[in-house]
Amino acid sequence: MGEVVATAQLAAELDTAATAVHRIGELAGVVAFAASGALVAIRKRFDVFGMVVIAAATALGGGILRDLLVGRTPPAAFTDLTYLCAAVLTALVLFFVAPPRRLVNGPMEVADAIGLGLFSVTGTVIAYSANAGAPTAALLGMTTAIGGGVIRDVLSGEVPSVLRPDQDLYAVPALCGATATALLLHFGLYYAWTGLLAALGAITFRLLAHRYQWHAPLARHARE
Amino acid sequence: MGEVVATAQLAAELDTAATAVHRIGELAGVVAFAASGALVAIRKRFDVFGMVVIAAATALGGGILRDLLVGRTPPAAFTDLTYLCAAVLTALVLFFVAPPRRLVNGPMEVADAIGLGLFSVTGTVIAYSANAGAPTAALLGMTTAIGGGVIRDVLSGEVPSVLRPDQDLYAVPALCGATATALLLHFGLYYAWTGLLAALGAITFRLLAHRYQWHAPLARHARE
Amino acid sequence: MGEVVATAQLAAELDTAATAVHRIGELAGVVAFAASGALVAIRKRFDVFGMVVIAAATALGGGILRDLLVGRTPPAAFTDLTYLCAAVLTALVLFFVAPPRRLVNGPMEVADAIGLGLFSVTGTVIAYSANAGAPTAALLGMTTAIGGGVIRDVLSGEVPSVLRPDQDLYAVPALCGATATALLLHFGLYYAWTGLLAALGAITFRLLAHRYQWHAPLARHARE
Repeated sequence: MGEVVATAQLAAELDTAATAVHRIGELAGVVAFAASGALVAIRKRFDVFGMVVIAAATALGGGILRDLLVGRTPPAAFTDLTYLCAAVLTALVLFFVAPPRRLVNGPMEVADAIGLGLFSVTGTVIAYSANAGAPTAALLGMTTAIGGGVIRDVLSGEVPSVLRPDQDLYAVPALCGATATALLLHFGLYYAWTGLLAALGAITFRLLAHRYQWHAPLARHARE
Repeated sequence: MGEVVATAQLAAELDTAATAVHRIGELAGVVAFAASGALVAIRKRFDVFGMVVIAAATALGGGILRDLLVGRTPPAAFTDLTYLCAAVLTALVLFFVAPPRRLVNGPMEVADAIGLGLFSVTGTVIAYSANAGAPTAALLGMTTAIGGGVIRDVLSGEVPSVLRPDQDLYAVPALCGATATALLLHFGLYYAWTGLLAALGAITFRLLAHRYQWHAPLARHARE
Repeated sequence: MGEVVATAQLAAELDTAATAVHRIGELAGVVAFAASGALVAIRKRFDVFGMVVIAAATALGGGILRDLLVGRTPPAAFTDLTYLCAAVLTALVLFFVAPPRRLVNGPMEVADAIGLGLFSVTGTVIAYSANAGAPTAALLGMTTAIGGGVIRDVLSGEVPSVLRPDQDLYAVPALCGATATALLLHFGLYYAWTGLLAALGAITFRLLAHRYQWHAPLARHARE
């Protein structure tokens, strides 16, 4: 019972003090992920409709998966259309305006890392609010953060980039952010600023992994 | 409250006056979609079991996805087995009898368009009856109509045909039919005949798009 | 009402007399499926994280799908972490220790068949306990048994092996085990030992199909 109250308080905390930061952060994540989906669609030579679908699936797919897994139906992405509109707008802007090449890689990686970090924290909080235990919430938080990219790649006919060995660490930072958030929630230490710290940690980890090309090891016998 | 009553009335309306038309239409859609799945399976040289699985996934997958998203579990496709039986029978008929080549393209396109149009309307109505708002219901209606084909293509190891740029407009007619239905429902103008009109509009749009090869545009910078 | 009581009794029966056998069986299935996923990941040259993800998805994916379809959220795989730990451990062992080649094929096939048989029975029982009718429960039992392998193959960018015509019968033994279990449940004849018999039947069928290369037929007109 006390835990349910604490969870409600926590959700309220999130809804008031942190609202602005949180919502701006989530929108930034949606825009970044939508842009990554739209750029893949352009590379695959999909038409404008395909761009919109892939952008929306990338930006919203992780959250939809999380909501299905915790039984929150219909998923928030279908009821609060702000995020869908942001994803569609992002795809349409990229349809009409080719982004300068130097803007695609650097800032895009930063934005994508921001989305990854924020989604791993907010996904964990939402799963925990839906009465998932702390370890379950951490797993669902990681799923929220990486799920959209997996759906993007499966729909584009590619092996998900989080699984490819030429990809630097991507899911591990998300798992760290989600685990930190779940620990904070479990020990009653989750506040707006500790949540932001967890997100910042995940974002920094991801950017360092990208900058210094950190890879997870292959099985020794596979390399031979 | 009044909306809930209206929704119940609407569902009742659908269950009585429109039952025969509706059910025949849905069965026609299931058979058409199952046939399209079975033909893809034959082209991919799957065995009879693979044909049945792909046919069932194509015909029922969109509805299963919709039911999961609105929280209607188990999905109708698992509880009312009429549709599953229709899909399996269709696959078995195509296993034993090669369809004449001239029957594959023309009539198949018409049947597929009928399925697309009817599913976009019935999917929207079912989502709306499950208390999804009108925009959500329209999105879920489109999902119902195109979801089966996406599952068919992912399982066959192909990029979903709705995303491929060489494909004429397919999802857009479904979205139009679903949007029209959602507007009718929202303004209390949904009757058996207006629903049928919406379906007919979507079907006509799809057939014209196929006949005159209407394509959605590519991003200009992708074409270069 | 009587059916609900019978179902509760049945679940209780399963929870007491059969617990040890059942749980050991399920763990064996999880380990076998996780190993099959990890071996595919090694062949695809995924890194250690990819191995863990594919192993977990293969071992737990079928059950997660079943739980989503019967509305049991969050799925058991997210709340009882024993199975996830078993899958992760299996992947890590295979990361550090290359299995001797002669161990990969023979015993692996036996373990995989054990997993297939046990999952087809336990999946059906769990779906039936969640008030799915007998035919629905059988379909969901088969889904539990083969779903993990389908997810493994889609994530690895391959056509699901249950659909490929060069694959000997795999889904049909699972369907037989699930159907037998559903019949036992429907007629009130399900006990620990009859359930085990159904599982053994499915396992034997699968091993014979593998040993004697039983294939489902292709459509005659596809072979020409």
